[in-house]
Amino acid sequence: MIEFNKLNQTSPYIVFKKKYDEALNAGQRNIEAIHISSYNKSIDEVDARLVNLKFIDNNNFIFFSNYNSPKSIAFESYNQICALFFWSATNVQIRMKAKIRRMPTKYNNQYFKNRSIDKNALAISSNQSKEISSYDEVIAKYMKTKKLEDLAKCPDYWGGFSFVPYYFEFWEGNESRINKRESFILVDDNWNKSNLQP
Amino acid sequence: MIEFNKLNQTSPYIVFKKKYDEALNAGQRNIEAIHISSYNKSIDEVDARLVNLKFIDNNNFIFFSNYNSPKSIAFESYNQICALFFWSATNVQIRMKAKIRRMPTKYNNQYFKNRSIDKNALAISSNQSKEISSYDEVIAKYMKTKKLEDLAKCPDYWGGFSFVPYYFEFWEGNESRINKRESFILVDDNWNKSNLQP
Repeated sequence: MIEFNKLNQTSPYIVFKKKYDEALNAGQRNIEAIHISSYNKSIDEVDARLVNLKFIDNNNFIFFSNYNSPKSIAFESYNQICALFFWSATNVQIRMKAKIRRMPTKYNNQYFKNRSIDKNALAISSNQSKEISSYDEVIAKYMKTKKLEDLAKCPDYWGGFSFVPYYFEFWEGNESRINKRESFILVDDNWNKSNLQP
Repeated sequence: MIEFNKLNQTSPYIVFKKKYDEALNAGQRNIEAIHISSYNKSIDEVDARLVNLKFIDNNNFIFFSNYNSPKSIAFESYNQICALFFWSATNVQIRMKAKIRRMPTKYNNQYFKNRSIDKNALAISSNQSKEISSYDEVIAKYMKTKKLEDLAKCPDYWGGFSFVPYYFEFWEGNESRINKRESFILVDDNWNKSNLQP
């Protein structure tokens, strides 16, 4: 589930919330799973991964990660991303383009304090995406952290990312690929709406 | 569904097929839906979209598109992509990195001939991702094409793309985010396997 706060009242956000509610009512699993595509300019490589989107605060889309992870390094190198939801329960795809940035340390500390200690133990113990000898070693590091560390203290290598879309596309699948597509692009603080060919 | 032909017998392809079969048996919807992330170097923009993966022929992953679409233009500008499956039925994510290229015209013509005429009418009639006045206009163009055009003749602006991964990552979700991750990277024709931290 995504937590919505002070929902932005411009068109694409209202459409977004409507599609979200429809997918939720249709029983969509992992509704918060969002694909984040990035480009690491220093190694010239496109990459992507799923993350769990936690909040939409007005027009800010927020998720959390390890700040030393490959995605964080890619965002530092090039801050424009593409974010994509696909909800198969309603056959809806939502595509966004945005610039991404870190959340403030104060926000991260506050948020971390209120998370479950099980998740925090993993956030502290894991050098995200770094090699390790075995999965057993992952478990051992996790168990050790759980015993020894202060699990309410946010490490400096963990925190939020926020992005504010400048582009939305809503895609609805239809028979024979006659899909319905609507886009919204931000121009001088106004959303210009278009219909796109399938 | 994805059609597998002459499955490559190296480790990551065998793991891939196993995970695919598990997701299929668990009733995964839209199992062929794959996220393709690209970078258009001429406009410095990361983009992504879902496509339907049609075939895995040995080590070639094949899907079809309009060759004038934004994704095709992005692939021309920069040919490295990231491709990602997420199967929520088994909570499995598969990430691949690869170089992408067009399929030969002869292959496209042959494939098009054997597709349904309904899909072909849409492939012919649609200027993919271009603006259009309304969805009704999309339908009108489609109906006109269906009456007037040779629906077995592949237009020169439509065809396949194929990519051969040089990197695979298999991700399995677990409690408290203690996810299991295995990667395979191609080095001098050998797959080097690693365990990655969650």
